[in-house]
Amino acid sequence: MVVGPACSLAKEATLGFGDVSLENKQPWGTPCTQLLVFVATPGCDGFPSLDSKEGYKLSVSEGSVLLSADSVWGALRGLETFSQLVGRDENGTYYINETEIVDFPRFPHRGLLLDTSRHYLPLRAILETLDVMAYNKFNVFHWHIVDDPSFPYESLTFPELSKQGAFNPMSHVYTASDVQTVIEYARLRGIRVIAEFDTPGHTLSWGPGAPGLLTPCYLGKDPSGTYGPINPVLNSTYQFVADLFQEVSAVFPDFFLHLGGDEVDFTCWKSNPKIRDFMKEMGFGEDYKKLESFYIQRLLDIISSLGKGYIVWQEVFDNEVKVRPDTIIHVWKEKGTPYMEEMANVTKAGYRALLSAPWYLNRISYGQDWIAAYQVEPLKFEGSPEQKERVIGGEACMWGEYVDVTNLAPRLWPRAGAVAERLWSNATVRDLKDAYARLAAFRCTLLGRGVQAQPLYVGYCENEFGGF
Amino acid sequence: MVVGPACSLAKEATLGFGDVSLENKQPWGTPCTQLLVFVATPGCDGFPSLDSKEGYKLSVSEGSVLLSADSVWGALRGLETFSQLVGRDENGTYYINETEIVDFPRFPHRGLLLDTSRHYLPLRAILETLDVMAYNKFNVFHWHIVDDPSFPYESLTFPELSKQGAFNPMSHVYTASDVQTVIEYARLRGIRVIAEFDTPGHTLSWGPGAPGLLTPCYLGKDPSGTYGPINPVLNSTYQFVADLFQEVSAVFPDFFLHLGGDEVDFTCWKSNPKIRDFMKEMGFGEDYKKLESFYIQRLLDIISSLGKGYIVWQEVFDNEVKVRPDTIIHVWKEKGTPYMEEMANVTKAGYRALLSAPWYLNRISYGQDWIAAYQVEPLKFEGSPEQKERVIGGEACMWGEYVDVTNLAPRLWPRAGAVAERLWSNATVRDLKDAYARLAAFRCTLLGRGVQAQPLYVGYCENEFGGF
Repeated sequence: MVVGPACSLAKEATLGFGDVSLENKQPWGTPCTQLLVFVATPGCDGFPSLDSKEGYKLSVSEGSVLLSADSVWGALRGLETFSQLVGRDENGTYYINETEIVDFPRFPHRGLLLDTSRHYLPLRAILETLDVMAYNKFNVFHWHIVDDPSFPYESLTFPELSKQGAFNPMSHVYTASDVQTVIEYARLRGIRVIAEFDTPGHTLSWGPGAPGLLTPCYLGKDPSGTYGPINPVLNSTYQFVADLFQEVSAVFPDFFLHLGGDEVDFTCWKSNPKIRDFMKEMGFGEDYKKLESFYIQRLLDIISSLGKGYIVWQEVFDNEVKVRPDTIIHVWKEKGTPYMEEMANVTKAGYRALLSAPWYLNRISYGQDWIAAYQVEPLKFEGSPEQKERVIGGEACMWGEYVDVTNLAPRLWPRAGAVAERLWSNATVRDLKDAYARLAAFRCTLLGRGVQAQPLYVGYCENEFGGF
Repeated sequence: MVVGPACSLAKEATLGFGDVSLENKQPWGTPCTQLLVFVATPGCDGFPSLDSKEGYKLSVSEGSVLLSADSVWGALRGLETFSQLVGRDENGTYYINETEIVDFPRFPHRGLLLDTSRHYLPLRAILETLDVMAYNKFNVFHWHIVDDPSFPYESLTFPELSKQGAFNPMSHVYTASDVQTVIEYARLRGIRVIAEFDTPGHTLSWGPGAPGLLTPCYLGKDPSGTYGPINPVLNSTYQFVADLFQEVSAVFPDFFLHLGGDEVDFTCWKSNPKIRDFMKEMGFGEDYKKLESFYIQRLLDIISSLGKGYIVWQEVFDNEVKVRPDTIIHVWKEKGTPYMEEMANVTKAGYRALLSAPWYLNRISYGQDWIAAYQVEPLKFEGSPEQKERVIGGEACMWGEYVDVTNLAPRLWPRAGAVAERLWSNATVRDLKDAYARLAAFRCTLLGRGVQAQPLYVGYCENEFGGF
């Protein structure tokens, strides 16, 4: 393997068939085939970004394999493709057919969301998922790291958050070292890590470790003992948020943070007399969306001042919060406005859009439900070419209500592969019969790589999971 | 542990918390607690049966635990209960509360069906399932061993069946030794193994290894090259069936065989001129149910002559096949006659009934679908007390269209536990909140025993699957 300057990244790229290094062995037998990798833009110590060039050319001919790419990120995609082209015949001999491939992604943001709050996912499960994401050419790990049920992120600034808010503050947490491990493991596979600290709702687990942060709910004249969203009327709230996000911005190198902003329940705010007073003072009337906007706008200002960009769930747009023009709106709702109409609205307003609504893979039904995910066409809405350009991709979501390490892998794979292909390949690649054959064969490849990917339908793989 | 005569079975009973033997260690710390087991009926080298007594009494008091049972099968159930009563406090010390338990099953047949034809399940997966069945007090493994897609059973009499009909005749088969391993592993856990060789439909995989067995389908005047159900008009068919079932009867020690008999598609029979000639000859007119009955009756005569009893799917009853009065009818259909009406009809006709219709656990939906399985009441039909007595139990079914070793365990557990409790416990045990708490705690116990049981809902276990 030839890479311009010494480049740890490409050397460490896992090729998927065992841990065979291409440099030292010729796993597909003699005559030896040499793999040459050319990367036009040197440098591989940085992080992938939304602008990374992931295209590559792969040319396999007798005695030589040439892989060329603009960037090391494209080279990684090409190595993955190469590894999937290597077959094995009945005698166990590896082989590869001659081929010429020019390949590049249709969308630059191809993400997968994991939820580590409703159930804790051990570090190992996250790393294994990153492996399989790379096999599927996903390039964004959206880490929905905290939420109502638990706060597993160990904050250096506010250690009480996980001490009081994790399911178990010793075992069910992500230490600073764990987080760095995830980020570096992802980087080596060309995957960005975008952390989500969702506010002002979805924060119940923050409460015990951050006294005064959440809104006390009232029952009549007295506090009920329960808490609602973050309290948006206190200065202390914004100080806390600024301090926490300063840490988060430093820990997660990606330019973007995901700020959440979804499903804010106004009931508790409405019950609290101090919040009601503030509403009057600000002239918000009975429109609690204005209070939500007030909070979000101050939050966005904080994030901007930290030099970060942001992604928010669609409610922030729906509720007409004033956001920076470069904000990315994440479309997720299945009910209410049809999601394709929402995509049209978001892009017409000039914002970039990410699609997830049809790709909630935590939702399951009996049978081949990968088909519905595959048949989605992200640009099938009324809009100008400029609007279509603003769709930067999408994300498959694996929310954690019913998912933990016991069922994560079989529920994700190969179903998420249908989303990955939709986001990578040309829009014309839609034939279901072909896709089935491809996905079923790829699933057998995944089993060979030790991934607990479930079957699409009746049949078998030569290597069943875990051996015989 | 004291067991009357030397009894390998009780000694080998796995107690579930590690592989700690009760005889050698006191895993719950000092002072030592002695477990005494009294079994009224000696002998433990036989096989469990439909008539096995599974009741037991367990008395835990300071310094001693007394377990008494009529039979060793009851003692096994009591040991399982005992193991689930042992807790562990924060310091890692084992403890058990004082208690008096008198326990026995409501139904004698509490089964789980695995399908090893649509996907092959490695031996290891079957044995692990038997372990978890014992934890759940299931006592019948219904082995749907062959079907249309593959024939993994290695027959000594007809070795070509698996050579030609298995997905892979080397790796995807159950050898005679595998089958013996399953039967003995099950026996040691008080579990009966009932094999199903489903005929005359569901036999496509039999064809290549048994020339002349299946009906050649016709397109107009010529054979189409495809095959239908077993050909019921040839004498050679009955010779083959007699020889195969002679072997099967010898291999599987349980008194009962499951003979299938479901979903016979008449299209191919109708297309075949020789079948049509036979229909005329026999005076069956256009009623192909009569031809099906003709086949089934000859099959049942063969099985009876082998000294075995039989279970058949409900179509055999629906199609008015003349069966022995001691036949067990297995109710599975969700469409057509409501299954509770079918239960009433079957028992009114004097047959014993097994319920599976509401317990197809391969079918999944998003959310807590264990609740529907739990809420079933098998005796909720119009009928006399005598009819109710004829309901011998039920089976949870895990058909294999979308299930193999990658997703079997999380799809089964703890969902099948809801069925297990319905079949074991008193009909009055129905409170959903209690059941949730019990099942969620039991699921954590399962994780501690290494079972990949999926979560019921948001939360955590101290020991997550696979560790941290």
